[in-house]
Amino acid sequence: MNRQMIRYTLGKMLILEAVLLGLPTLTGIIYQEYHEALIYACVAAVTGISGLLLDIQRPKKTKIHAREGFVIVAFSWTLLSLFGAFPFFFTGEMPSYIDAFFEIVSGFTTTGSSILTNVEALSHASMFWRSFAHWIGGMGVLVFVVAIMPDSYGSSLHILRAEMPGPIVGKLVSKIKLTAQILYKIYLGLTVLEVLFLLAGGMPFFDSLLNAFGTAGTGGFAIKNSSIAFYDSAYVDAVITIFMFLFGINFNLFYFMLLKHFGAVYGNHELRWYGAIVIGASLLIAANIAHLYPTFLNALRYAGFQVVSVITTTGFVTADYGQWPLFSQAILFTLMFVGACAGSTGGGMKISRVLIAIKNAKAELKLLIHPHGVTSVEFEGETLARSVVNSIHAYFVFYFLILFASFLIIALENIDFASAFSAVVTCLNNVGPGFGVVGPVGNFSSLSNLSKIVLCLDMLAGRLELFPFLVLFLKDIRQ
Amino acid sequence: MNRQMIRYTLGKMLILEAVLLGLPTLTGIIYQEYHEALIYACVAAVTGISGLLLDIQRPKKTKIHAREGFVIVAFSWTLLSLFGAFPFFFTGEMPSYIDAFFEIVSGFTTTGSSILTNVEALSHASMFWRSFAHWIGGMGVLVFVVAIMPDSYGSSLHILRAEMPGPIVGKLVSKIKLTAQILYKIYLGLTVLEVLFLLAGGMPFFDSLLNAFGTAGTGGFAIKNSSIAFYDSAYVDAVITIFMFLFGINFNLFYFMLLKHFGAVYGNHELRWYGAIVIGASLLIAANIAHLYPTFLNALRYAGFQVVSVITTTGFVTADYGQWPLFSQAILFTLMFVGACAGSTGGGMKISRVLIAIKNAKAELKLLIHPHGVTSVEFEGETLARSVVNSIHAYFVFYFLILFASFLIIALENIDFASAFSAVVTCLNNVGPGFGVVGPVGNFSSLSNLSKIVLCLDMLAGRLELFPFLVLFLKDIRQ
Repeated sequence: MNRQMIRYTLGKMLILEAVLLGLPTLTGIIYQEYHEALIYACVAAVTGISGLLLDIQRPKKTKIHAREGFVIVAFSWTLLSLFGAFPFFFTGEMPSYIDAFFEIVSGFTTTGSSILTNVEALSHASMFWRSFAHWIGGMGVLVFVVAIMPDSYGSSLHILRAEMPGPIVGKLVSKIKLTAQILYKIYLGLTVLEVLFLLAGGMPFFDSLLNAFGTAGTGGFAIKNSSIAFYDSAYVDAVITIFMFLFGINFNLFYFMLLKHFGAVYGNHELRWYGAIVIGASLLIAANIAHLYPTFLNALRYAGFQVVSVITTTGFVTADYGQWPLFSQAILFTLMFVGACAGSTGGGMKISRVLIAIKNAKAELKLLIHPHGVTSVEFEGETLARSVVNSIHAYFVFYFLILFASFLIIALENIDFASAFSAVVTCLNNVGPGFGVVGPVGNFSSLSNLSKIVLCLDMLAGRLELFPFLVLFLKDIRQ
Repeated sequence: MNRQMIRYTLGKMLILEAVLLGLPTLTGIIYQEYHEALIYACVAAVTGISGLLLDIQRPKKTKIHAREGFVIVAFSWTLLSLFGAFPFFFTGEMPSYIDAFFEIVSGFTTTGSSILTNVEALSHASMFWRSFAHWIGGMGVLVFVVAIMPDSYGSSLHILRAEMPGPIVGKLVSKIKLTAQILYKIYLGLTVLEVLFLLAGGMPFFDSLLNAFGTAGTGGFAIKNSSIAFYDSAYVDAVITIFMFLFGINFNLFYFMLLKHFGAVYGNHELRWYGAIVIGASLLIAANIAHLYPTFLNALRYAGFQVVSVITTTGFVTADYGQWPLFSQAILFTLMFVGACAGSTGGGMKISRVLIAIKNAKAELKLLIHPHGVTSVEFEGETLARSVVNSIHAYFVFYFLILFASFLIIALENIDFASAFSAVVTCLNNVGPGFGVVGPVGNFSSLSNLSKIVLCLDMLAGRLELFPFLVLFLKDIRQ
């Protein structure tokens, strides 16, 4: 285990976080929130100094393996959140450190579950930091680190693999660093585009920026108590629906589009299924809730927004879907598991993972009646390595183990079944709101500290797709 | 595809069902319910004649393959239920044929979910048939057929494999027919023992017999509106708890005990986990509900009964667990999925299947950091064939697909989330009661016909562990 390289990368990450903390500091100064600005500046200083201390000694060997990749990712996200929670706590806006930690984990993991009962009471600085966390976490903080690290630093592909969502993570170009840079450029470009569209609709700049952060990271932190419903504008709903959908697409496809490889985009199975599921689910829900709205088109507007918001695991809300019929809720509940496309900023299981598992299960079914056949699974035109299929299965097994174990702990709360179960589902899949107490008009404030900690672990495990944290429990890692 | 052999075996199965229908006829005569007895006799006659018609022509080739095994099992269970529902319908006790079908499917699949609002109003004949269905379905109707078919009839191992629960089904002795006979002898012996124990506690003979049927098949149809709570006896609770536990054990282990191979029993991992889960869950629930009962021991009595009832997927009830705190409900909910041991009469995923999946997932996790390692999973002292592990994964994938698809349909009902979700979970796992509307004091009567049909399919799919029905959708089977 290359401990030096782990320490060094963690240091780099903290230095990056310190720099990023400069932005909420600046926001505080602009809005004349000097008390908050000072606190953000101090936290930035402490974080930066911690990072520099870790980085005093350069690592002798820079080569890292898969195990270091997982460990770096698990530790980075934990440290990122532990430091990132300080400003919320020290400004007094969240008097409990666990609440502050929950809120920032929910931010970085792009979940968007909140412990705040009145979001609008936050300072601009904290409002900014909270939504900005979505943006950082969406593409991945280590992807950022890799993008700015010197080339000479080892096989950072292992870091990328461990942090990026999806069953198969490849390089876009031969250099990892360039791949990371391309991804961030596309990400930044799309975000800027959304800000412009929101501004064009008359939304204030601050709101446009923060809502774009929330959309881009498929995070979903609302900056208004009634979330996006606050703007009550079909234009805003449409823009955010479209951008949520876009950020739920595999970023490799945007790169192919830039290269004008439209065939690869058009023929992409995951994208087709993604589109089909979104359209199908929106129509079903619209039909199911049509009686609650003046026109079918109106029902479709709210249905479509909610479907895209949930399948991309963003979690923005324009309607209290807790009041919709059970059928609509059941569709949303199911979509929470499915999630968006691999290689997007969305959470959940990912459509490709589900598709591969189904394809493989069908192949296995055939083997039952043709015992001497062969199973091989093709996906996106390529025969998948058995190891990919196997690791998807391992993912599912751990996924459901974590789901049930977490549910049993949350069930200690004095709440109803749907609230407790959906709290776990929504956090593990990085969606945001659930049903009942933690539904679209509720929040996570009333839960016990134990529940909050468990849900924080679920959010982190979900964002990093389980393995980086699970690997820490292996004997050869602990040695 | 050997169609002749499929037809022939289905004929044999119907003849067997006709003979078995003789018992409720006899019950009707004994209790002077001549109207019901006549109907049972007529249905027996029609079933028997249908069977004989199918069997007029002997098959030329008797060899069958895996595919015929699956098809025979899927068709047998469907026919068994279609004919078995007639008496309930024609006696007028269940005026809707779909209700009658639901009730008998619930019987044969040993689920125990009921559409009756007043069980006690049933005739003795129908009460008997309903509980007897549990007994027939528990060990498997085709295991019975195999036990009585002439030796010369092909490789009936494929039938046994397709009907018997668990990821690995082997022969106890070299001859399949003898294996089937041994299993039925153990089954009968344990059932008689339970009847004797219940009689010793002062329970009437009719009740003892039917409750023993319900226990043996891990079915759970109550013959009193308040289920086993009716007897209000610690002795009865203890006897039934112990026998439910016994019927949840792999029957191979009983055979080993008869052969005095105690080592194989003592070292059995699945049994150890089964025991540990039962004890752990009972203690946790007892502690959680202690404040509702006069003493901890009293709480433990109800907790233990319910835990064993649910993990074995029996579904008998001695307390309205819908009134227990969410934590206790969450444990029961989780146990519904786990199920009992493979090769028992219980339903659910089976402990061994869950254990193997976890072991394999751990091995996969190690591969992530040692990419050149090898995965092989050992279970019960043997290295598992990769095909076993793969088919377990396929099982899980189909399991959750069916679960969510069914939930979406049941969600069309005007009921709450927990009721709808648990209705599917309890039927797919062959447990019986769920939560809310379909909870321990509720029933399935208020559901729509669509929901009832979907739940019937879930019960059948669950009892036969999915594959026999799924195989019917394959192209080469349909040809």
